[in-house]
Amino acid sequence: MVMKKYRVAILGATGAVGQEFLNLIEERKFPFSELRLLASSRSAGKKIAFMGEEYTVQEAAAESFAGIDIALFAGGAASAEFAPHAVKAGAVVIDNSSTFRMDPEVPLVVPEVNPQAIVRHKGIIANPNCSTIIMVMGLKPLYDLAKIRRIVVSTYQAVSGAGKEGMAELEEQVAALAEGKEAVANILPVGKLPKHYPIAFNLIPQIDVFKDNLYTKEEMKMIDETKKIMEDDTLRITATTVRVPVYRSHAESVNVEFKEPISIDAARSALAAFPGVVLHDDPSAQEYPMPLYTSGRNDVEVGRLRVDESADNALNFWICGDQIRKGAALNALQIAEYMIAHDQI
Amino acid sequence: MVMKKYRVAILGATGAVGQEFLNLIEERKFPFSELRLLASSRSAGKKIAFMGEEYTVQEAAAESFAGIDIALFAGGAASAEFAPHAVKAGAVVIDNSSTFRMDPEVPLVVPEVNPQAIVRHKGIIANPNCSTIIMVMGLKPLYDLAKIRRIVVSTYQAVSGAGKEGMAELEEQVAALAEGKEAVANILPVGKLPKHYPIAFNLIPQIDVFKDNLYTKEEMKMIDETKKIMEDDTLRITATTVRVPVYRSHAESVNVEFKEPISIDAARSALAAFPGVVLHDDPSAQEYPMPLYTSGRNDVEVGRLRVDESADNALNFWICGDQIRKGAALNALQIAEYMIAHDQI
Repeated sequence: MVMKKYRVAILGATGAVGQEFLNLIEERKFPFSELRLLASSRSAGKKIAFMGEEYTVQEAAAESFAGIDIALFAGGAASAEFAPHAVKAGAVVIDNSSTFRMDPEVPLVVPEVNPQAIVRHKGIIANPNCSTIIMVMGLKPLYDLAKIRRIVVSTYQAVSGAGKEGMAELEEQVAALAEGKEAVANILPVGKLPKHYPIAFNLIPQIDVFKDNLYTKEEMKMIDETKKIMEDDTLRITATTVRVPVYRSHAESVNVEFKEPISIDAARSALAAFPGVVLHDDPSAQEYPMPLYTSGRNDVEVGRLRVDESADNALNFWICGDQIRKGAALNALQIAEYMIAHDQI
Repeated sequence: MVMKKYRVAILGATGAVGQEFLNLIEERKFPFSELRLLASSRSAGKKIAFMGEEYTVQEAAAESFAGIDIALFAGGAASAEFAPHAVKAGAVVIDNSSTFRMDPEVPLVVPEVNPQAIVRHKGIIANPNCSTIIMVMGLKPLYDLAKIRRIVVSTYQAVSGAGKEGMAELEEQVAALAEGKEAVANILPVGKLPKHYPIAFNLIPQIDVFKDNLYTKEEMKMIDETKKIMEDDTLRITATTVRVPVYRSHAESVNVEFKEPISIDAARSALAAFPGVVLHDDPSAQEYPMPLYTSGRNDVEVGRLRVDESADNALNFWICGDQIRKGAALNALQIAEYMIAHDQI
């Protein structure tokens, strides 16, 4: 039997997520017959060596998607512009931007959590926000044991969420401070907003812009997207999202109240058995997830699982996952892999 | 009128908190007539220049407190050993260790929050845990508007909580990584425990040792001490405490459910009016507290105040404060100042 191969385009191939798509396509032996690397005019012409071939990055255009089966969009403003063209050309778009996530016509998918949503797609499948993906990986196995009433989450988010530029900014600030110079901030918290603050040895309680309700867009993504992915509008969620001086793994402190009793032993077993989750939780041996050690890894790690005595049927846990992998590129590629495995493409 | 002056001893004078006692005594013109600097044998003999005088650090001994009015204990294991001697010598001990905090005979005091507890002392007054002090500074003005039902707090704690050694460890790790060397960890999360992890570009979800209930001692301090300071055993609290690569200000994401309705405008006004709290909260201007800017400052800053729609009568806020100042030395000195101002010493 000859395995079918797919013609793949990556939009935003030169950014942090785009590069991770390439790493993962190689690592996971993703079955591609053609690979088209697309980016903005700024990166067009750039050469990328990949799996023994040299690829030239092309400037993305309306006609870039002719013949493409799977279009992996790394995110950003380009998604809104190019998704309709890619769909029209017959590609399935798996989009990492926030553009289509809350569109009722667009499935919002974490393959381990709600793969059943994929078949409803009309050409576009949205990849959730990074901190949402990581959180629902911990929530789903618990939700399957006992319905969730309310979630209070505080995040500790890596600078990779602001792309290569965010990572470079932290690195440059630390280097400048070591030389007795000032830490210059141009990117964080939000490049296009007027004020920028150093992230080196600091915390910034703003990720993305503020909405009228005084929550950031990132916080509202965690609230709204989680309900959509879990397919439960009764879920009550509040979020505080914070940027921390860590390079590429997000961490989250999650408090969950359930509608019914849940046994901690059952919770441990369910987490340990859930695909893509590693239960890393042995306080007596000082074992718990830390972002330094989940970086570059595919699995999301859960630890510090314990009963919260301050409410009925409540648990606390701590979860860490690579923001560029499971939080972005890996999840998107897993959607494509799921579709291939289930003859949906 | 001649202002009364006091004979002051500082136990642990050479550590981070001890040094801050000296900074604050000078800054605040604390009325001392004699200053005795005490430390372990390791630091004995060290010379410290202070306000134009040279002081020699003495090795702390049972008889070190003769004639002392106020003994400021920077914390650590020495407290248990020397507090009884200091009390016997007639001094009031203001102790920054956890030794006496939950002793029903010992007041646990944040002067802005529960100064009424001070008069009940029998020689020892306990200074609360740093993250507890910072949190209750934000809670008290809200509690005065509406009784609190439940608190879910996640902390982002600076390395200064592990003393000078903790701060040096972060600095050394960052320097080593910049030179392409390995980040060596000997102190964090807990010096005396077998495993140590780098804090540079990492997060460690362990502060202090673990208890049998899988919470850390730091988390249980926040739970137990808050109830004692607020004088309300009905408070329900859960905490997750995390070490972050920040030098000396703690930050906390605090979710509060109230027993009755609370207006956000009244909450804002109460926070802004509370002594020692600065309301730093203007999302439209990207203004919110950040640990880099509260370091070295006396006030605790509150921001990101907003209604939590996931529960009835709930608010979220974000609070930052200098761990060595309000979290330790300043609060202790303020207890002494309160006693002086109210003729309690």
